[in-house]
Amino acid sequence: MRNGKTTGGKFFEDFRLGQLIAHATPRTLTQGDGALYSGLYGSRFAVQSADHFARQIGYPQAPVDDLLVFHVVFGKSVPDISLNAVANLGYADCRFLRPVYPLDTLRAHSEVIGLKENSNRETGVVYVRTRGLNQRDETVLEYVRWVMVRKRDRDAKVAPAVVPTLPTEADPATLGACVPPLDVRAWDDMLSGSRFRWGDYAAGERIDHGDGMTIEEAEHQIATRLYQNTAKVHFNQHSEGQGRFGRRLVYGGVIMSIARSLSFNGLGNAFHITAINGGRHVAPAFAGDTIYAASEVLDAFALPGRNDIGGLRLRTIALKNKTAAAFANADTGGHTEEGVVLDLDYVVVLPR
Amino acid sequence: MRNGKTTGGKFFEDFRLGQLIAHATPRTLTQGDGALYSGLYGSRFAVQSADHFARQIGYPQAPVDDLLVFHVVFGKSVPDISLNAVANLGYADCRFLRPVYPLDTLRAHSEVIGLKENSNRETGVVYVRTRGLNQRDETVLEYVRWVMVRKRDRDAKVAPAVVPTLPTEADPATLGACVPPLDVRAWDDMLSGSRFRWGDYAAGERIDHGDGMTIEEAEHQIATRLYQNTAKVHFNQHSEGQGRFGRRLVYGGVIMSIARSLSFNGLGNAFHITAINGGRHVAPAFAGDTIYAASEVLDAFALPGRNDIGGLRLRTIALKNKTAAAFANADTGGHTEEGVVLDLDYVVVLPR
Amino acid sequence: MRNGKTTGGKFFEDFRLGQLIAHATPRTLTQGDGALYSGLYGSRFAVQSADHFARQIGYPQAPVDDLLVFHVVFGKSVPDISLNAVANLGYADCRFLRPVYPLDTLRAHSEVIGLKENSNRETGVVYVRTRGLNQRDETVLEYVRWVMVRKRDRDAKVAPAVVPTLPTEADPATLGACVPPLDVRAWDDMLSGSRFRWGDYAAGERIDHGDGMTIEEAEHQIATRLYQNTAKVHFNQHSEGQGRFGRRLVYGGVIMSIARSLSFNGLGNAFHITAINGGRHVAPAFAGDTIYAASEVLDAFALPGRNDIGGLRLRTIALKNKTAAAFANADTGGHTEEGVVLDLDYVVVLPR
Repeated sequence: MRNGKTTGGKFFEDFRLGQLIAHATPRTLTQGDGALYSGLYGSRFAVQSADHFARQIGYPQAPVDDLLVFHVVFGKSVPDISLNAVANLGYADCRFLRPVYPLDTLRAHSEVIGLKENSNRETGVVYVRTRGLNQRDETVLEYVRWVMVRKRDRDAKVAPAVVPTLPTEADPATLGACVPPLDVRAWDDMLSGSRFRWGDYAAGERIDHGDGMTIEEAEHQIATRLYQNTAKVHFNQHSEGQGRFGRRLVYGGVIMSIARSLSFNGLGNAFHITAINGGRHVAPAFAGDTIYAASEVLDAFALPGRNDIGGLRLRTIALKNKTAAAFANADTGGHTEEGVVLDLDYVVVLPR
Repeated sequence: MRNGKTTGGKFFEDFRLGQLIAHATPRTLTQGDGALYSGLYGSRFAVQSADHFARQIGYPQAPVDDLLVFHVVFGKSVPDISLNAVANLGYADCRFLRPVYPLDTLRAHSEVIGLKENSNRETGVVYVRTRGLNQRDETVLEYVRWVMVRKRDRDAKVAPAVVPTLPTEADPATLGACVPPLDVRAWDDMLSGSRFRWGDYAAGERIDHGDGMTIEEAEHQIATRLYQNTAKVHFNQHSEGQGRFGRRLVYGGVIMSIARSLSFNGLGNAFHITAINGGRHVAPAFAGDTIYAASEVLDAFALPGRNDIGGLRLRTIALKNKTAAAFANADTGGHTEEGVVLDLDYVVVLPR
Repeated sequence: MRNGKTTGGKFFEDFRLGQLIAHATPRTLTQGDGALYSGLYGSRFAVQSADHFARQIGYPQAPVDDLLVFHVVFGKSVPDISLNAVANLGYADCRFLRPVYPLDTLRAHSEVIGLKENSNRETGVVYVRTRGLNQRDETVLEYVRWVMVRKRDRDAKVAPAVVPTLPTEADPATLGACVPPLDVRAWDDMLSGSRFRWGDYAAGERIDHGDGMTIEEAEHQIATRLYQNTAKVHFNQHSEGQGRFGRRLVYGGVIMSIARSLSFNGLGNAFHITAINGGRHVAPAFAGDTIYAASEVLDAFALPGRNDIGGLRLRTIALKNKTAAAFANADTGGHTEEGVVLDLDYVVVLPR
């Protein structure tokens, strides 16, 4: 029996359409978080890695890595949204709206925008729009995600299904807001690690990012705790050992960060993620798995009012224990292959 | 044979009553330490997590986590006090006296306040009062601990036993010194993650903190090195593989921090540890163990001169590979149960 | 088949004598990196650990650990120099030229100073002089290393062999540049953890540093990623499992840092590495190995113009799964023994 002061997370019938849920705990992001993020993923994008590089092109200092911001905001929502989730089904309409710098404090809230009971009546899908805000109450990030959540009581009556209509692709006019006007003449391709600018990429191009990275239990646990993500499946071998997989599950965001880090090889100048159109964790990953990644350029487009930067819509897939060579090189028509754990549709920004 | 410039730690007969031992190495605590501490334990108390939250209620900035301060001070004492310890027997009279902020530099010294040879004449118990000081020579923390230490020479003569009289409970008048006067109207319960204030807790109440956290070798090693704690048993599989347990032992402070982090679920507003009345590492823990925790409220009391905050005396136990449900829910009369690794009697502070 | 935008690293025939290669990615070193470095190695040298200690003797603040600087500069060179290396053969003529403080941004470039094809024509040795520079374009570190690199094409014609002449020992007149004038009267031996100053050491002296430290996969991976070192052999169990050793190889720099950290016990006042005359990774190390270390004082010499500090030339060896007692105590004539993984000839600085 649970003491009334603890929370075991919400069940499907606890959510109401239009409900606004403010999440605990605010979090000041520091250069310490950046260092640990570096140690966990080895990211090499110059803008986030070096104050001096960032300043030379027009940033006040190196911004916090986009996915670190995403994971921290996501983590805040877990205790209220997905503690009893069976599965994290997808993301959509994610846009990075303002840069985050070390010493900014982030908090988050979520609005319930859709609810649909499953036909088995034991679970339902909850759609939320989550926003991350800084200490000036500015929204720095927003995204929609939907999760399958257990019902506490199979017989509980629920409201009629409402499924939100979601954009499949971000409007270019809404993108790039995190990037100050850049002096791209000061962008040093030797330092950034790639001589390929926005104009060098074309739709249809595929890139095998080559390297593989093996995940250790300590690594994904440290990462997921850094985000204050409390989902039980990531941390508790005693209970998960008796569960569905017999082991702890790696937080899907860890795979996103590994794939992003690996993507440096081939996309070294793609310094900023400005939007995530959609993402699916196709299969679970576990400690001991080695992650590979490949990307397809889905589209290349200008950003209205910006002649310093341009956007690439990418599909990046991550695979486990299988190189990405087949995806990158064969004309597979985009079919998802065996071994895929992540399928991400997102927009990156490069200097022109 | 040992070179004269290395230290192998003191043996029982090396200690003298009244001896004052200054410990190496001073340590500047940074936001980097805070980030790593977050990654290792996933703590979610808002005051330590967010500068903005801390400032709104009256702190100059987010203070360093109490147990990180404790572990760093403790770590400094290890090479001089407990390198040859058979067991770390207990703590008492621990009080946090001044807040520690990032960029404060801590050092520590210990005074020998008791010595008692064991009847087997092969070991003895050493009692020390250890103080942590900041760069202004202010004591930020003090505590008594006692350890069983080997004798170098069984036949060495030792002085008659002196066992200090120690308080079993901190005087409320001495507590809360780390907490500046708070504007509790600015304390946001949504952000802090709990709507339960000091007045909502009553003696006798028990809380199962629910979650479990599995410890990895890399995690406890990184934590213990972060504290510059050099006790050999935590780091050396080559020697420990042939030792008592056949494996590396997890530093007891790691269990304290995990239990503290888990206690957020049920004690979300208990933002500060102001005293530790006593603590015992009841049984050893090892990598692979999953830690659970539960707490009993032993007492709730006002703090003299403070109407912003109040104190709760808690008994928090940590268990390995066993949920805390039985402790939290049955009327067990407080008996320590099988599986318990830590039994901690301490005082936390909450907003009123 | 590789997309033209990715890099698979250079092969032997891609290098040209005199070629200058600017490396990506610049990196701002922060106190976060220092914290993670502490957690990974547990270093206890007071100057790097405490701003307050550093300031009292004349530093503006605690400098970044020398080997963290070395590893970060080294890491930058990996994608361009040693991604296809069969072996990292040696270091020479490494000098630390300017202090590095938190928030300095480092970049690196390498000059090819020697090339020698091996007789099997399948590999060759590449000699580079690598320099690390700060945001003011000042060289903070330089060193020579040579690596055995595969040829892409066995039949490729290569230029006649050029092998550089390298100093076997740093000229004392060039050393100590990282250390500001020190007020050694303010150096507190209790806080630094050793009462032995430069004058207390003599050539021929041997020190067994005593402790052992076991390496975990998560630890060496986090360390090596922190340095943005991308060598595949450290991170990919999926490929390395089918490779030469059947496992991931620990970056040799991890062993250097462990040995340096262990050397505190016996060399607590050797607060700065000013030069590395030579170093060899004698044998590979893997997760699960326990590292021990011992040192021999090869020489003790004054530094021209400095009466605050003096230099010790040291030979430090690291062993795996074997204590250093035999090396430290027997008159073995300096012969490298079974179990040695690192043999390092370097110069440290101590207060006089």
